[in-house]
Amino acid sequence: MKIIEGGVCAAKGFKASGIHCGIRKNKSKKDLALIVCDKLCAAAAVYTTNLVKGAPIYVTKENLSDGHAQAVICNSGNANTCNANGEEIARKMCALVEKHTGIKASDVIVASTGVIGQPMDVTPIENGMESLVSELNLNGSRAANQAIMTTDTMEKEVAVEFTAGGKKCSIGGIAKGSGMIHPNMATMLVFLTTDIAITPEMLQKAVSQDVKTSFNMVSVDGDTSTNDMLCVLASGEAGNETVASDGEDFASFKAALNKVTTYLCRLIAKDGEGATKLLECVASGADNYETAAIVAKSVITSSLFKAAMFGADANWGRVLCAIGYSGADVDVKKIGVSFASQAGSIEVCKNGEGVDFSEEKAKEILSESEIRILVSLGRGKYSATAWGCDLTYDYVKINGDYRT
Amino acid sequence: MKIIEGGVCAAKGFKASGIHCGIRKNKSKKDLALIVCDKLCAAAAVYTTNLVKGAPIYVTKENLSDGHAQAVICNSGNANTCNANGEEIARKMCALVEKHTGIKASDVIVASTGVIGQPMDVTPIENGMESLVSELNLNGSRAANQAIMTTDTMEKEVAVEFTAGGKKCSIGGIAKGSGMIHPNMATMLVFLTTDIAITPEMLQKAVSQDVKTSFNMVSVDGDTSTNDMLCVLASGEAGNETVASDGEDFASFKAALNKVTTYLCRLIAKDGEGATKLLECVASGADNYETAAIVAKSVITSSLFKAAMFGADANWGRVLCAIGYSGADVDVKKIGVSFASQAGSIEVCKNGEGVDFSEEKAKEILSESEIRILVSLGRGKYSATAWGCDLTYDYVKINGDYRT
Repeated sequence: MKIIEGGVCAAKGFKASGIHCGIRKNKSKKDLALIVCDKLCAAAAVYTTNLVKGAPIYVTKENLSDGHAQAVICNSGNANTCNANGEEIARKMCALVEKHTGIKASDVIVASTGVIGQPMDVTPIENGMESLVSELNLNGSRAANQAIMTTDTMEKEVAVEFTAGGKKCSIGGIAKGSGMIHPNMATMLVFLTTDIAITPEMLQKAVSQDVKTSFNMVSVDGDTSTNDMLCVLASGEAGNETVASDGEDFASFKAALNKVTTYLCRLIAKDGEGATKLLECVASGADNYETAAIVAKSVITSSLFKAAMFGADANWGRVLCAIGYSGADVDVKKIGVSFASQAGSIEVCKNGEGVDFSEEKAKEILSESEIRILVSLGRGKYSATAWGCDLTYDYVKINGDYRT
Repeated sequence: MKIIEGGVCAAKGFKASGIHCGIRKNKSKKDLALIVCDKLCAAAAVYTTNLVKGAPIYVTKENLSDGHAQAVICNSGNANTCNANGEEIARKMCALVEKHTGIKASDVIVASTGVIGQPMDVTPIENGMESLVSELNLNGSRAANQAIMTTDTMEKEVAVEFTAGGKKCSIGGIAKGSGMIHPNMATMLVFLTTDIAITPEMLQKAVSQDVKTSFNMVSVDGDTSTNDMLCVLASGEAGNETVASDGEDFASFKAALNKVTTYLCRLIAKDGEGATKLLECVASGADNYETAAIVAKSVITSSLFKAAMFGADANWGRVLCAIGYSGADVDVKKIGVSFASQAGSIEVCKNGEGVDFSEEKAKEILSESEIRILVSLGRGKYSATAWGCDLTYDYVKINGDYRT
C-alpha cells in the first residue's frame, strides 16, 4: 500500500472539475464541484445524525437507496439547510447533472455546504453547468476540492494504491471541514472514489465500520454539522473479482480505506478553524475500545485543554479533568499522561498524580505544530486515537462574524 | 420574599471572614475564607460528578454523612486535586478550624479551588488561621467571597428574606466560578446559609431538586470541574417549627432557595471567563421538562453560537444546528427562534425556516450585554432556562497560560 497522486481521480474511471459559478460573490473562490464516473458505481454513504439536516441529505439518501450512483455534485457558499424549497433545489441540481451529462438524476449524490438558513438561488448553478461539465478531466480532483472549501485554509486530498484479488486498485478522496466539526456516526463532506469491484453491501459495511475510528474521532468545536456526509463510489474498473464477503480482499480494501480516511482526518483537525496545532490523543490500556475512544475524544474536545495547548502550557490537570467527566469507566489512580512532539516527549502525570518535570522542556515540546497526548489507563490492552486542534483567538474571530 | 444585604451572614447565627494567607503570591488577592455558625447546623451538599475529584470533596462527604456541619473553610490558588497527600491536607484544614474555633473537625466543610495537580503547602493556612478567626464578623460575607475567587472578575453574593411557619427567615450565599463551568448534577463552589429550622433530609431534598433547574443549567465552557460543590448550612435560629416534610413551609423555602441559586447562576454565566455577554436561553413548548432543558443547554453550550453572539451576529442557523444535535426529540418543522434584549426582540426563524428580518435591528438587540434566546418547540407546555456566555478572545487568552 502506498500513497499516490490524483485524489478522487486516482481510481480508474473518474473525472472531476470545480468552477466559480456565482453562488459566492468572490469570483476567485470556486463554488461548484462535480465528480463523475464513466460507469455506474456501487455506492455507500454515512450521514450526520443531527436532527436538523440539510435538504441535500434527504435527496442523496433517496438516490443511494439502490446502492448505486455515478456522480457527485456539490456547491459551497450555501448549505441549502432550513430553506422552504431546499429539497426542490437539491433535486434540480441532480436534474441539471442529468441534462448535461446523461447520467440519471437518481444516480447523483448531491451536497451543499455554507451558511444555514439562507435562501438559495439555483440560477448560478444552472448557468455554470456547461462549463463545469466541459472542464471534467483526469486531473480535476484539486479543482473539485477547492470548490467545496468554506473556511478551510488548506486542500484535503489523498489517494492510496493497494492490491485486491491480485489486481492493483486505488482509492482516493477529497474532504472539506474546518468549523462545526464534531462528527457523530457520520462526518463532514468527504467524497471518496475507488476502482475496486465490490458489492454495495460490503462497501457500506466498510465505510460504516471505518468512520467509527476515523471521522467520528475528530472534533474541532463540538458542533455536529447539519450537512455532514461521507460517500464512496466504487467503479469496479480495477478488474478484481467482486468483493462480496469478508476475507483477505475486503481486509485489504478496509486497510486502504482507513489509510485515506485517517489521512483526511488529520488534515481536517490540523485545519480546524483558527487552529495553530494538530492535537492527537492516543488513549491506551483500556478494557475495551469504547472506553479508550471516549477518553481520547473527551480530551481533544475540552475547550480548556485546547486553550492550554494554544498557550503551550503543560496543564495536565485539564487532561485528567476531561477524562474524569467523560463518562468512561476508568481508575483515576492508574492514569498516566505524557506529551510528545518532534521535539521529544515528557511524562507529566503518573498514577493520577503529578510528577516532577522540566517546564522548559514541556514548553519546547508543546511549541511544535503537531502534539501527541499519550494517556495510559493501566487496565487493559485496547487503545484509540482522536484528533483535534487548539482553541485560538482566530477561532473566535472567524465565528464572530461568519455570515457578514 | 425580597432580596436583602448580607450574603452568607444574612441568616441568623453566621459570621464570615476572608484573608490573604500566602497560598497566592499576589498579596492583594485574598485566598482563604471561613464561614462559621454559633450552633451546629443541618447541612446538605451536592458535588461534582467528575470521576477525578478534588481531595476536599472526599473529606467533606465524610464530614457531612451525619447531616450536620458548623463551619466552611475554603482556599483559592490551589485545587488540592491529583495530589498524593490531598486528603491529608484537607483533613489538616478541618483540624486547624477545630484548633482555632473549638468547632469539631468532623463538622467542617472543606473546599479548595485553583490549579489542579500542583503540590499544596498547608503552612500558609496554618499561619493565617489566627487572623482568619479573629476577623470573623457579621459583615464578613464579602471578604469570604473575595477569598474564593480565581479568574472571577465580579463578586457573587445574594440573600433573600422569606417567611416559613409565621417566622421571618433568611437564606443567602456566595459563589465562585468563571471557567471550567459545566456543572453536572452538582455545581461550582457555592456556600449557602439559612436560619430556617429544617431537617437535614428535607434540606438535602430541596438542594438536590433545586440544582436541576439552577446550577445544572449553567455552562461556560463545557468542562465539568473536579471540585464543584454546593453546600448549605441551616442554623434553625429563625425559630420556625422545624420543617420535616413537604408542605407550605418547605415550598416557601424552596422558592427562596431558587431565588438565591438562580441569581447566582446568572452571575456565574455573566462572569464566564472572557465573557462580554450573558446568554439566557428559554426553550418552551416542549413535551416535558427534560426535552426543554436539553435544548436550552445545548444552545448555550455551542461554541459556534457563543462566538456568533460575541460578534452580535444573528446566525440563527447555529441555534437550529445545536438543537438538532442535542439528542432531544423535537419536530424541526415546528421550531421558532427569537432574540431579545433591552433593545427589543426580533423573530428570526419560524417553522424551522428563516423569516425576513432587519439585520440592523438584530445587531442592535445582540449588542446589549444580556441576550435572551427564545426557542419555541411547538409541541407541549413545558419550558426550561439555561445560562451561558459568549466565547471571546479573552477566554482563549485567560486559558492559554492559566498556570503561568
